[in-house]
Amino acid sequence: MSAIDILVSEVGPRDGLQNIKAIMSTEAKKAWIRAEAEAGVAEIEVGSFVPPKLLPQLADTAEVAEYACGIPGLTVAALVPNLKGAENAIKAGVHKITLPLSVSETHSLANLNKTHAQVYEEVQKITALLNTLPPDQRPGFEGGLSTAFGCTFEGEVAEKNVVKMAVKLMELGCDEVCLSDTAGYANPAQLRRLIRLVRAEVGDDSLAAVHLHNTRGLGLANTVVALEEGITTIDASLGGLGGCPFAPGASGNIVTEDLVFMLDAMGLKTGIDLDKLLKVRDIVIAALPGEIMHGFTPAFFKPSHPQ
Amino acid sequence: MSAIDILVSEVGPRDGLQNIKAIMSTEAKKAWIRAEAEAGVAEIEVGSFVPPKLLPQLADTAEVAEYACGIPGLTVAALVPNLKGAENAIKAGVHKITLPLSVSETHSLANLNKTHAQVYEEVQKITALLNTLPPDQRPGFEGGLSTAFGCTFEGEVAEKNVVKMAVKLMELGCDEVCLSDTAGYANPAQLRRLIRLVRAEVGDDSLAAVHLHNTRGLGLANTVVALEEGITTIDASLGGLGGCPFAPGASGNIVTEDLVFMLDAMGLKTGIDLDKLLKVRDIVIAALPGEIMHGFTPAFFKPSHPQ
Repeated sequence: MSAIDILVSEVGPRDGLQNIKAIMSTEAKKAWIRAEAEAGVAEIEVGSFVPPKLLPQLADTAEVAEYACGIPGLTVAALVPNLKGAENAIKAGVHKITLPLSVSETHSLANLNKTHAQVYEEVQKITALLNTLPPDQRPGFEGGLSTAFGCTFEGEVAEKNVVKMAVKLMELGCDEVCLSDTAGYANPAQLRRLIRLVRAEVGDDSLAAVHLHNTRGLGLANTVVALEEGITTIDASLGGLGGCPFAPGASGNIVTEDLVFMLDAMGLKTGIDLDKLLKVRDIVIAALPGEIMHGFTPAFFKPSHPQ
Repeated sequence: MSAIDILVSEVGPRDGLQNIKAIMSTEAKKAWIRAEAEAGVAEIEVGSFVPPKLLPQLADTAEVAEYACGIPGLTVAALVPNLKGAENAIKAGVHKITLPLSVSETHSLANLNKTHAQVYEEVQKITALLNTLPPDQRPGFEGGLSTAFGCTFEGEVAEKNVVKMAVKLMELGCDEVCLSDTAGYANPAQLRRLIRLVRAEVGDDSLAAVHLHNTRGLGLANTVVALEEGITTIDASLGGLGGCPFAPGASGNIVTEDLVFMLDAMGLKTGIDLDKLLKVRDIVIAALPGEIMHGFTPAFFKPSHPQ
């Protein structure tokens, strides 16, 4: 049925931009999103519905989301920290909302200023809101298990807590959960174990996505294991934009270009035209001079290279 | 029995140095090899016994190899292109020799100036020579299947040829074969397939090592698959030194530091102290100013980083 094997979900306009100081113009964001959709990327997380004073880089999320919703065939996703964010996301017309729940409570307090119990309350309120909507206007509702593989503040994170919180999110009305390696701590053995543990409790269909970072260079190694385990949605950011605030020079999300190159090479269909995708970098580079754009594929895919 | 699960084989003093223009001093090579051995690296490919006019960077291989053989517990490996090289390697006392056989005949001619038939002749002569040695003086003899995953000149390489040539090398007296991704073409699906195809013909024990490059960023992703398939020796180069002559800025061998970090994280024992290994970089950086040292782990393992 499906024309693609793996859904590459671009999160650069949200996760990339929120981790750099520079503010990209609204016009550049629109151009980036449109160009990437035209390269065949079928899902893009376009921003986060948080108060502008917390993340001025994403203050224009509503406008960007509304614009993105006008691009034919594109699934528009957005992060929401609470009910208020969900209301605004629904108003903008997004197709999917993700609420991040940090497995590390220290990180949850730092990130959302909320305890676990308080985040669960928001999930319940959002579910109640979504249940008032007609089915064709109801966005998908994903619970993102942040810091699922380790936390910059707390260090190791207990796997049984990840499983417990995944179950709780599903009970409270999420359509699916995602395992997020917020700080790039995951290793292939751990990722395989955790996918299996969570799926054993929530079912395979409820865990279809992973959000991996490449901070320690293991992003694609982890991706291979996710693919082997049957994960079908992989988050990535163009140029690995965003980096890690705690490690200067370190990479951020896995690099969309490298991910698509690998999937292509493995014979897995993504629907993405890699040449067109590589050209999208120019938009980001022009809009954010001085930011590091990571990736191996761009260095290699030079027309001058003897193939 | 074994104190380690995975043997990390450092190839930087050979594969790294042969791919850069600068010539490292003999003293720096010795310091590098000693420091890396002291960090727990158990096998190092210290050079290549080729005519100095072909690879001036490795002209001191005999002296370096003799020195390395004096380091307790270290397995000293060297590349040899022919019988003459093997004679010199034996004279220097190395513990293991590798003869590269390019699956792509175009590459074989460019690399060794020899057809496949001519390389097989050298293999036979080397085997005959090795058979004259007392067992305790006989080095291990590995056949390295270069360009096994693709060739810069020929493009795709037929898998049946890789299998055929692996069988032939074993028949002619090699102790084992190694699959080498000379130009960084391998992808995880291909690597798994080829390991299984070759092992089905030569047996699991005769294919225990892979030599991977990170040109396209898939080095560790490929490594994960190799580990899953039961490969126990992984080649790597400190700082990914060497790059790819055809892609400026692209990476060379997989980065030893990142490999060790990943194996550690996965709970696989290497016997290597990562902190000590990271300090070895200083020797190489001081000896080769201006050369790019790759790797994610060094950026991350800053003492200032909150763990």
